[in-house]
Amino acid sequence: MDKWYLHGGSEDDVVLSTRIRLARNLREAPFPHRLDAGARKAVNERIRSAMFALGGIREGDYRYVEMEKLSPAQAISLAERHAVSPEFASDRSGRALILNQDETVSVMLCEEDHIRLQVLRPGLDLESAYDTADKLDTALDGALGFAFDEELGYLTACPTNIGTGMRASVMLHLPALTRGGQMGRLSATVSKLGLTIRGAYGEGSSPLGDFYQLSNQVTLGISERAAIDNLKAIAVQVVSQERTARESARGDAEFEDWIWRAYGTLKNARLLSGREFTDLISAVRLGAAMQLLPVVVTHVDDLLFSMQAATLNAAQGRELSARERDQLRARQVRERL
Amino acid sequence: MDKWYLHGGSEDDVVLSTRIRLARNLREAPFPHRLDAGARKAVNERIRSAMFALGGIREGDYRYVEMEKLSPAQAISLAERHAVSPEFASDRSGRALILNQDETVSVMLCEEDHIRLQVLRPGLDLESAYDTADKLDTALDGALGFAFDEELGYLTACPTNIGTGMRASVMLHLPALTRGGQMGRLSATVSKLGLTIRGAYGEGSSPLGDFYQLSNQVTLGISERAAIDNLKAIAVQVVSQERTARESARGDAEFEDWIWRAYGTLKNARLLSGREFTDLISAVRLGAAMQLLPVVVTHVDDLLFSMQAATLNAAQGRELSARERDQLRARQVRERL
Repeated sequence: MDKWYLHGGSEDDVVLSTRIRLARNLREAPFPHRLDAGARKAVNERIRSAMFALGGIREGDYRYVEMEKLSPAQAISLAERHAVSPEFASDRSGRALILNQDETVSVMLCEEDHIRLQVLRPGLDLESAYDTADKLDTALDGALGFAFDEELGYLTACPTNIGTGMRASVMLHLPALTRGGQMGRLSATVSKLGLTIRGAYGEGSSPLGDFYQLSNQVTLGISERAAIDNLKAIAVQVVSQERTARESARGDAEFEDWIWRAYGTLKNARLLSGREFTDLISAVRLGAAMQLLPVVVTHVDDLLFSMQAATLNAAQGRELSARERDQLRARQVRERL
Repeated sequence: MDKWYLHGGSEDDVVLSTRIRLARNLREAPFPHRLDAGARKAVNERIRSAMFALGGIREGDYRYVEMEKLSPAQAISLAERHAVSPEFASDRSGRALILNQDETVSVMLCEEDHIRLQVLRPGLDLESAYDTADKLDTALDGALGFAFDEELGYLTACPTNIGTGMRASVMLHLPALTRGGQMGRLSATVSKLGLTIRGAYGEGSSPLGDFYQLSNQVTLGISERAAIDNLKAIAVQVVSQERTARESARGDAEFEDWIWRAYGTLKNARLLSGREFTDLISAVRLGAAMQLLPVVVTHVDDLLFSMQAATLNAAQGRELSARERDQLRARQVRERL
């Protein structure tokens, strides 16, 4: 079954993906950081049994992965595809993952909480993602009994998640707003509205490739539905602003030159670092979305996920040198773009 | 009739062109800088009559151009194609040009000397270029009577040309030696052998595009044939060194990456300055010569000559803005490469 990011989604000229993540804990077990490896495995085993016993979830659709049995490249590759958090991939002791075939549903076991249930969708699709997460949440709660306080809501290892235990986010591609120098103002605006926006790749003030995560911050004193409605309303606004910025740049020679040069480099380079690739693919994704380039947006997104370092290593089944990886990346990008 | 640079020549993987230039003066007239415009025109008229009366030179093959009647773009375009010197193009008062159709033979009238006879050939072809120049020289001497001193040789306006009055040069493309940091040593070596090598484009220490002129410096106390044999022997050596450097770089990922990226940019850019174009076309010429790229060397040389600023202006029949020219250059390079 194809991975989720090979399918187009709503508003996918700007929105790459939607993610709902619920933090949940078993009532009768201490939080994972208080458990040794053996106790974690026992918790994982309980959740696994409950999950695979649920109606509507066939064994074949899901696989159970003991994280310790993965190579570092395989684990980090899961993080690169957003199926697990980076922390979950880097410290794998006593941790396990339940993942469905198209990787839209993943359940991290003994991450910071006993359960981190995540649903991904291509494009902007908060309702559907939330519905799926909510059904699984309800079913698992019935089977396992989640730690819940009438006043506080769901209890979580970190107090910032208490309440709904939910993070909802959309991954946005905002090259025109970034080029137009509008990200600072946008970031200030969304934070006043209880959301945060930060670079999806790279660190700090210079995000790589103009990819951003817009997510809710508030989990206490708000319902899950209200949080999602708020996020969606603002995401729709940002999408509209990005589209306006794109249209006002259309026809500008410097703008089109930037896009075509990025395309020309990706189609011809023999060495491509991950950093340069991410910067260039951003311009190409924009050109594809604006129908300036003979490129399909979903192909770009496929490359964006599959050309990352650990995913390349994992696909080769060995640790490539940086040079080998840059050569392999360049070759695959040339052939697949 | 096609221009000379549309034809391949001997060793044209490295040698773009060969040039012989003879400085000659009429015995009975002061040097041009001592003549007013009227007197210059009288001299030009004498040379024109003699030239067009020569056996074997049909009127239709040559045209006579009064430089004052050209637009600045047309005049500078002639210099960009090496048909005239840059000085001849910039100060056109009382000057004239006799030029054949494929632009291999040009006679500048009242440049620094009464006659600057120039023969161009594609590739390395000193003997043929010299033979043509020598025959015209002998025939014109018979008709006009050149200023000649038994001890000094041909008399010229500038003492550095006295003797043979000849400059022979080859235009070389040395990207591999340049990339290998070997140009400093090469320049020192050839200057000990009575030759000079300097960037054909750009100024001073950073030549644009790795194109160089290798030329003789000595005109006194040496025969024309000996000067040509010396230049040819050293040019052959330099060609061999460049080829060795190219072959040792073949297969290197950085090297091939550099060439393919240049190609990708030229095939896709929407804006191309003359400076960037010259740098990129150098890498593409190398890739064409090494059969790494699907490009023919003579097409590269055609672009190298025709994409220069004044030649673009002249072809459009008007003075383009820098932006318009960069757009036009990018479009033509995309379509023609």
